[in-house]
Amino acid sequence: MKMTMAVDIKSLIDKGQLKLLKQLISDQKPAKIVEMIEELPAEEKIVVFRLLHKDQAANVFTELESDERMKLLSLFKEERLKELIETMDPDDRIEVFEELPANVVRRLLAYLSPEERKQTLTLLNYPEDSAGRIMTPYYLDITDHFTADQAIDYVRKEGSEKETVYTLFVIDDDRNLTGVVDLKDILFASNDKKISDLMTKEPISADVYTLQEEVAQIMRDYDLLALPIVDSERRLVGIITIDDIVDFMEESATEDIQKMAAIGATETSYFHTSIFKLVKSRVSWLSVLLILGSLAAFIIDGYSEILQKVTILAAFIPAITDMGGNAGGQISAMIIRSMAIGEIDKTQLKKVLIKEIVVGAILGVVLSLVMAVRAIFNTTDARVILSLGASIMVVVMVSNLLGTILPFVAKKFKLDPAVISGPLLTSIMDIISMAIYFSVAVLFLKDYL
Amino acid sequence: MKMTMAVDIKSLIDKGQLKLLKQLISDQKPAKIVEMIEELPAEEKIVVFRLLHKDQAANVFTELESDERMKLLSLFKEERLKELIETMDPDDRIEVFEELPANVVRRLLAYLSPEERKQTLTLLNYPEDSAGRIMTPYYLDITDHFTADQAIDYVRKEGSEKETVYTLFVIDDDRNLTGVVDLKDILFASNDKKISDLMTKEPISADVYTLQEEVAQIMRDYDLLALPIVDSERRLVGIITIDDIVDFMEESATEDIQKMAAIGATETSYFHTSIFKLVKSRVSWLSVLLILGSLAAFIIDGYSEILQKVTILAAFIPAITDMGGNAGGQISAMIIRSMAIGEIDKTQLKKVLIKEIVVGAILGVVLSLVMAVRAIFNTTDARVILSLGASIMVVVMVSNLLGTILPFVAKKFKLDPAVISGPLLTSIMDIISMAIYFSVAVLFLKDYL
Repeated sequence: MKMTMAVDIKSLIDKGQLKLLKQLISDQKPAKIVEMIEELPAEEKIVVFRLLHKDQAANVFTELESDERMKLLSLFKEERLKELIETMDPDDRIEVFEELPANVVRRLLAYLSPEERKQTLTLLNYPEDSAGRIMTPYYLDITDHFTADQAIDYVRKEGSEKETVYTLFVIDDDRNLTGVVDLKDILFASNDKKISDLMTKEPISADVYTLQEEVAQIMRDYDLLALPIVDSERRLVGIITIDDIVDFMEESATEDIQKMAAIGATETSYFHTSIFKLVKSRVSWLSVLLILGSLAAFIIDGYSEILQKVTILAAFIPAITDMGGNAGGQISAMIIRSMAIGEIDKTQLKKVLIKEIVVGAILGVVLSLVMAVRAIFNTTDARVILSLGASIMVVVMVSNLLGTILPFVAKKFKLDPAVISGPLLTSIMDIISMAIYFSVAVLFLKDYL
Repeated sequence: MKMTMAVDIKSLIDKGQLKLLKQLISDQKPAKIVEMIEELPAEEKIVVFRLLHKDQAANVFTELESDERMKLLSLFKEERLKELIETMDPDDRIEVFEELPANVVRRLLAYLSPEERKQTLTLLNYPEDSAGRIMTPYYLDITDHFTADQAIDYVRKEGSEKETVYTLFVIDDDRNLTGVVDLKDILFASNDKKISDLMTKEPISADVYTLQEEVAQIMRDYDLLALPIVDSERRLVGIITIDDIVDFMEESATEDIQKMAAIGATETSYFHTSIFKLVKSRVSWLSVLLILGSLAAFIIDGYSEILQKVTILAAFIPAITDMGGNAGGQISAMIIRSMAIGEIDKTQLKKVLIKEIVVGAILGVVLSLVMAVRAIFNTTDARVILSLGASIMVVVMVSNLLGTILPFVAKKFKLDPAVISGPLLTSIMDIISMAIYFSVAVLFLKDYL
C-alpha cells in the first residue's frame, strides 16, 4: 500500500500532473503525507512541499525524521523556508531547532518576527527535559465571570488557531491560573451558568521546570488532555497537550531500552540511521564494556595455580559471571522502570533494600541448589560442587544488592539510572563475581594447592 | 504531602467525622482519592468507599492496583458490590474482570443485566491484546445529514454518559462507519452546515482484532483523541480513547523492559508485589539461564589440556562471553523496540540483515583491535594476543548476526521477541562464544599442546 502510493506520486510528478497531485494530497493528514512521500528522493519531496498549503507544509515538515529535515532545509528556497519556520507552532519549532546545528538555528531565527524570536529563545532556554521546552503558548484563556454562552462564543471565534479548545484555562487579572474547565462541561451547562461555577478550582498544573517525565505521570494519572504550565509566580505561560506526551512517552521508553542495552542515542529510526551512525552509537559502549569486562582477567590470572590443578573451575566461569549480571540486571531494570513511571522515588531506597535483602537471600539459596545439582553432570568432586553452590549464593546476593543500590546512587548524583543498569552492572559484577568465585574455591579446595 | 493527607483521613474516620470527610472528597478526582487512601488498611478504605457517590466509587475502584481490588471485593457488602460492578464503564469492567479468578467473575457477571452481561462476555471473548478488549461502546454517533447545530444539540443532550464528545462518529443506516468529525470543526462551522461537509470521509479506523500495539501506533501517528473500531463488516462497534492508549503504552513498555531483563510479568507495582511474587517472577528465568549458561562448561571442559598449559586463556573468558552478550543484546534491543513502535516490520529481515552484516564487520574489526591492545597488559605472548583479537572479531560478528535474526524468527513463530533478547541471547552466545574462543585458541596455540 505504502509503496504503490509513493509510485503513484512519483509518476504524477514525472508526468507533470501537479494539479491532480495537489488535489489528491490537499486534505490528507500530515502523517499520511509523510508516509506517501517517504520513499521519494529529496528533490521530489520539495516538489510535493510546493503543492501543500503553508499550515500543511509546516506540519508535514515537523513529522519528518530529523535526517530528512536537514536534507530538505538546504534545498528549500529562502522565501519558502522563511514561510515554513514562521508557520510552525512554537513547540514544533523548538523540536526542529533542537536537532539543528547552532549556526543553522541562528540563520533560521533571523526569519522570525522580533516577538516570535524572543518567544523561541525563551523556550530554548528551558532545560532540555523540562515542561517549558515542550509547552505551547497557543491556548484559550478566559476569566471566571464569563458565562457558558460567552465561553462557547469565545471558543468559536478564537479557537481555530489554538492547540486545543477542549480545555479552557481560567486566569485572574494578574494572569494567575485559578481554574480549568472542560469544554464538555460548558456545553452541558445552561447558557447563563458562570464559569466560576463550572471550573475546577486549584487545578492540577506543573511548573516550567517540572520534568517532562513528571508531566507524563500527572497527565496519565489524571487522564488529562491538556495540562496548564505556570511560571514561578503561578502565572499561566503555556500548556502541554496529550499528543506531545504520547510522543514523549514513546521516545523516553525507547531511550531507556537503548540505554539498558548500552546503545548511545540515535535520534532517527533504524532505517534512517546511517551505518556510520549505527556503529558510532554502539562501538564506544562496547569498547568500554570490553575493557571493564577484561579487568576480571587480573583477578583470574592471580589464581592460575589453582586453575592449573582444578581446570573444571574455568568451565563454570560463564555460568558464574552470567548469574552476576542477570540477577542484578533484573532488579535494576525493575527499579529503573518503576522510577521512570513514578512508582518508586529516590527517597525509598531503604524500603526497597529491606525487601530485596530477603528476595536476594531466597534467590541465592534456590539458585545455589540448582547450581549444585547441575554441577554433578560435570564433576563428582564434592568440594568443587560445594564451592560452586556457595559462590552462586554469594554472587546472587551481592549482585541483587548492587542492582538495588546503583539506580538510587545514580539518581542521587543526577546520573541516568538506565545507563548504569544492564551491561555496565554486568561488567562490574564480572570482577566482583570472579573475586568471590576464586576466594570461595581456594577456601574449599586448599588441599589441592 | 501524600502522607499527611492519609493521616488526616484516618483521623477523620477515627473521630467519626464522616460528614466532613464526605465533603472533602466529594469533588476530588479518582486518581487523587486513590493517592489519599493508598496507605489506609482495607477496612478503612471500605469506609471511604461508602462515602463516595456511585460513579466516583466505580472510577476509584478501577484505578486501584489489582491486589487492592481483590482485597476489597471480599469486603464489600453484596449490594454495594452489585452497584459498583453495574456502574463501571464496560472497558473498565473488562480490565477488572481480566485479573480476577474465573469463579469470582462468574459471580460478578450475575449482577449485570442480561444485556450488559452479553456485552461484557462479548468483550471478554476478544483476544487479550486486541482492540476489541479495550474499546468502549459509549460513543456519540450521528448521521451525515445532521447540521452543525443539530450535532451540538445532540452532544449537549446525549454526551454526558459518553467516553468522549470531542470526536463524533458518522454512520449510515447499516451502522457502517462513513466518517468522523471533530467537535471543534462543528463549533467553528456555521449553524446550518451539514456534517457531510465537515466530516473526514474514509476515516482512520481499526478492526476489533487489530493489535493494541497497532492501535497505539495509529493514534500516535495521527494525533487522535479517539479511534473508531469496526467489526468485519465495517459496522461501528466501539471506540478507543487516548487515555486508555496512554495506559497501554506505559504498561507495554514496562512489560518489554521486564522481558528483556528476564523478569516474569508482575501485574502490580513494586511495593504492591509480595516478596513471594517477586521471587517467583525472577527465579524460574534465573534457573533456566543458569542451566543454559553452564552448558558452556561442557565446551570449556573439553579444552582442559590447553587451559592447563595456557592458563591466561581462562582469564579472558568473562571478556569474551560479555562481548557475545552485549553486541547481540544491543542490536536485538534496537530491533525489538523498533518492531514494538512499528518502525521495523517482520518482513524487513533482509533489509536489516544487509545493514547489520556491514555494521557487525566494522564493530568486529574495531573491537578486536581494542582487545589486542588491552591484552598486552596481561601477556606478551603474541599468539595469545592474536587469538584473543581474532576470537573477539568472530564473536562480535556472530553475536550481531544472531541478535539481528532472533527477533524476526520469534515474530515468525508468533513468540514474543522481547523474551528472546537480552539474557536468553547471552546464554546461547556463551556456548557459541566459548566454542569460537577455544577453536581459535587451538588454531593459534597448537604448538603448546
